Amino acid sequence: MTDDALLAQTTRNGIVESSHYGAAIVVDAHGKTVFSAGDCTTPVFPRSTVKALQALPLLTEGAADHFALPDKALALACASHQGEPEHIAVATDMLARTGLDYGVLECGTHWPLDTAAARGLAAAGEAPCALHNCCSGKHAGFICLSCATGQDVAHYTRPEHPVMQTVAQTLQEVTGAPHTTANRAVDGCAIPTWAIPLSALALGYARFASGIGLSPDRALAAQRLRNAIAQNPFMIAGSGQFDTRIMTELAPKVLTKMGAEGVMIVALPEQKLGMAIKCRDGGVRAAETAAAALIARFARIEDAPVLTHFMRRPLKNWNGQFVGELRASSLLAQAYLPPAPSAQN
Amino acid sequence: MTDDALLAQTTRNGIVESSHYGAAIVVDAHGKTVFSAGDCTTPVFPRSTVKALQALPLLTEGAADHFALPDKALALACASHQGEPEHIAVATDMLARTGLDYGVLECGTHWPLDTAAARGLAAAGEAPCALHNCCSGKHAGFICLSCATGQDVAHYTRPEHPVMQTVAQTLQEVTGAPHTTANRAVDGCAIPTWAIPLSALALGYARFASGIGLSPDRALAAQRLRNAIAQNPFMIAGSGQFDTRIMTELAPKVLTKMGAEGVMIVALPEQKLGMAIKCRDGGVRAAETAAAALIARFARIEDAPVLTHFMRRPLKNWNGQFVGELRASSLLAQAYLPPAPSAQN
Repeated sequence: MTDDALLAQTTRNGIVESSHYGAAIVVDAHGKTVFSAGDCTTPVFPRSTVKALQALPLLTEGAADHFALPDKALALACASHQGEPEHIAVATDMLARTGLDYGVLECGTHWPLDTAAARGLAAAGEAPCALHNCCSGKHAGFICLSCATGQDVAHYTRPEHPVMQTVAQTLQEVTGAPHTTANRAVDGCAIPTWAIPLSALALGYARFASGIGLSPDRALAAQRLRNAIAQNPFMIAGSGQFDTRIMTELAPKVLTKMGAEGVMIVALPEQKLGMAIKCRDGGVRAAETAAAALIARFARIEDAPVLTHFMRRPLKNWNGQFVGELRASSLLAQAYLPPAPSAQN
Repeated sequence: MTDDALLAQTTRNGIVESSHYGAAIVVDAHGKTVFSAGDCTTPVFPRSTVKALQALPLLTEGAADHFALPDKALALACASHQGEPEHIAVATDMLARTGLDYGVLECGTHWPLDTAAARGLAAAGEAPCALHNCCSGKHAGFICLSCATGQDVAHYTRPEHPVMQTVAQTLQEVTGAPHTTANRAVDGCAIPTWAIPLSALALGYARFASGIGLSPDRALAAQRLRNAIAQNPFMIAGSGQFDTRIMTELAPKVLTKMGAEGVMIVALPEQKLGMAIKCRDGGVRAAETAAAALIARFARIEDAPVLTHFMRRPLKNWNGQFVGELRASSLLAQAYLPPAPSAQN
């Protein structure tokens, strides 16, 4: 097996049912490791956790101001949204400001991830389009960047397109991790993704959190994005989602972003820290649980209900009966682990 | 970390993205271990993998004949169905034969797991009921057993109800693993579940596959259930599901049943073998992939497209572009691992 650490476990009547292993790291903006567990050096695909970094050029290149994008749009550009009506409205508006519509999106189409939104669409006799793709806000941001900088939008998702070049260059400079064709793959929404060490991902978000180590224009862009996300936590994900729930209660002190396959980043502006987590098996639930524990511990938050909930999540059956829990490992949570949920009420 | 073995990995452009560890065991009907990997002794909750064993009393106690249940109903009694219209029709019919309706079900209500079925229900302006619960067929079987044996159906899901007592006794005798209050918890559909060693679960299915080690009435019941499942693979799960796809192509040579939290059983009647798999992180996709590999290897099937697909599953993005794969570990698949799906096209 590997050198990974226990992140989270599910129990059923107190008996361990499933266990998630992986790696987690907390670094400051100078790259100093404050905490680490598991293998943080093997490159991982950061997936959607890098969206806020990918959105930096939207501001530094002047596109956000050119199209007078409101804060909701800036937040949606960093989002993995659930395809709810408000997300669709903002993505539509972003494209309309460039004179284009969803036909230009290259992210592909799927039904809304929010099941109620999907059923609502079906009940209205409608079908999804590319706007419902969870990455449509990010892609609308790419379109704005492309149009504002005078580029042909066609094939904007290809690695050689100027928009992707600018985004990739930003990622490399902010995380410090080089991109090569050897660590490149294709993401779920068709753009390139590069495997990088978890430590570099965490460093990127320590810089994003603090502005330290960024050029003045990037530091200002990071501040605007942090504010936009903090004020629009619904835009970043959607109903019931981890990022939205955490930031509704804890932003701007805490910013989080999930990624597919169990990746999670956290930015703590007050502490000037960045975190990155990879659940090795791709389990999103474990990445969320681990993030809640590390947020409580390193932001020193002892009494936030949303952290208590995600650190030690009650599991219920379809009758609403309490049957077990999903809890963070004591390695991560230490003294911040709350009492068992059955004892909470 | 634990003593578990690599079961499956996802890759993206050839780079490992996520890894699943766990345990797998293949035993014959005399309890001899033919193959094992990982920790097969620590008790695991078998969840829905035991449904076919839980259905044995429906036949041995005469309830199936009493209500003249058709084979489709017997298969549905062993199912984790997706809530598609044909599943609902059969569950409704099972209850109607007892003079009851869905109001008697204690499994709880959720939207159909099949997303198209859920959207279809919403588009028709309807809401789900307990019939749409993925366990409603099993529960309808319990109702039939309760009614045929003259028991009051109320609280049929409680451990002390005669139906649950009969089912639990059957499980213990067929798997050889004792039940105590210390290894008991509550399952997702409200009935009791007991954590047992993976080796005992596999032994139960080696006996179910062969009849060896079972009383004559149980051996006959197992044979009838095997036939009912093999002839109705859609009933056991539903559209696009692993069990349905595997058995549509390979039954009656191969029977499979998934369970929540990454558990899987396989029965190979011709080889008189039973298998049990637990993906330690609860990952269903890894249990499926591992099962496909072990089926190919121990049923000695070299050319079944469904096994090739699940052993080395292509991963595509929303544009249909091939971006990676989910593949069985070589420890499990050995020479049966097919070429990469990119080469398959």
